Amino acid sequence: MFRTRVHNLFVSSDGYAAGDRVTLEQPIGEAGALFSKFDGRVIHGIRGIDDPVTVDQALFSMWGQGIGAEIMGRRKFGPQSGEWLDDGWRGWWGDEPPFRTPVFVLTHFPREAIEFANGTSFHFVDASPGEALRLAGAAADGLDVRIGGGPSTVSAFLQADLVDFLHLAITPIVLGTGVRIWDDLAGLEDRFSVESISTASGLTHQLWNRKSRQ
Amino acid sequence: MFRTRVHNLFVSSDGYAAGDRVTLEQPIGEAGALFSKFDGRVIHGIRGIDDPVTVDQALFSMWGQGIGAEIMGRRKFGPQSGEWLDDGWRGWWGDEPPFRTPVFVLTHFPREAIEFANGTSFHFVDASPGEALRLAGAAADGLDVRIGGGPSTVSAFLQADLVDFLHLAITPIVLGTGVRIWDDLAGLEDRFSVESISTASGLTHQLWNRKSRQ
Repeated sequence: MFRTRVHNLFVSSDGYAAGDRVTLEQPIGEAGALFSKFDGRVIHGIRGIDDPVTVDQALFSMWGQGIGAEIMGRRKFGPQSGEWLDDGWRGWWGDEPPFRTPVFVLTHFPREAIEFANGTSFHFVDASPGEALRLAGAAADGLDVRIGGGPSTVSAFLQADLVDFLHLAITPIVLGTGVRIWDDLAGLEDRFSVESISTASGLTHQLWNRKSRQ
Repeated sequence: MFRTRVHNLFVSSDGYAAGDRVTLEQPIGEAGALFSKFDGRVIHGIRGIDDPVTVDQALFSMWGQGIGAEIMGRRKFGPQSGEWLDDGWRGWWGDEPPFRTPVFVLTHFPREAIEFANGTSFHFVDASPGEALRLAGAAADGLDVRIGGGPSTVSAFLQADLVDFLHLAITPIVLGTGVRIWDDLAGLEDRFSVESISTASGLTHQLWNRKSRQ
């Protein structure tokens, strides 16, 4: 049985996990401070990062372990909304998207899939969280499925009780604005066991494991 | 430039990291309690372990990341000593040794290499730590080299200042006997930056990063 996993979700002290406005210039909106301690190379393992190897990085490096597919919201794929334009957009990541698996992009405007040589393919589906998870689970071929964000997508999967594992990195900053992660999730902790540790960087990591799987 | 890394080295409160006597029945001597919280499947990533996914397991899962070769002491390969007997011994691990890379076994009695279909090969070398590291570094082909133990081998590489990264799991038990890890290493901390965290299981993880690499 596969797990549905969320990794490296940075959340501010006031509960924001992305900026309000996503533009070509600001892929994560005005919330860049959330990720100031994140070296993105670590998602493929600690080999690729600079010294020192920290507890933060060890935890971030789980991102790619045993993952066979990702589900993401449309805003993670690009800044556009509405009907797709014939603009050649193939995502933020150039010729080497880091996913290396099938990726299911949730959108009300399905379109043809986009494939890359490194194993990444984007599939555009108008689907509920449950339907998307069935598609991704089949594509993952026995491996786990990552819910890749943004925060609204993670929140929707949490509300549908479809997340087995959630790694949050609580960042001690106050954003004041952005995309909220905790709306409509009161009592979420009842469904999970939660382990928390704080590290030398000031981050607090929370590992949420869904109880019904244990 | 590659790192020389030690992972998942369990150490008792009184500084022992293995049992005294290694036999066919007790591959780790009388020190089994050191590993009572360790699910060995995690070395290939969190996908393979049971729920919940804990901080302990996230840290243990670094073991295989970006590793291209291992160096181990002879006692990790088998309980024999002296001249090799023609007994068909191919290590403790059956047909699927977990290493999946070249492994250099330090011994005063070199012999022919042993190869497995899963990418593991054992090479028996009579070499100093520095010589062994040159061989392993070349075999690792741009990836990192793991010093796989046992404790005497780790200690020898630490004394030679050839370890870049060391992950210790301090286990709150008192063994009273076994193979000591800290002998002849007084002041070791001067050469490293050390990050410590304790987890819900009672383990304390220490990540030692060699300063001269930073």
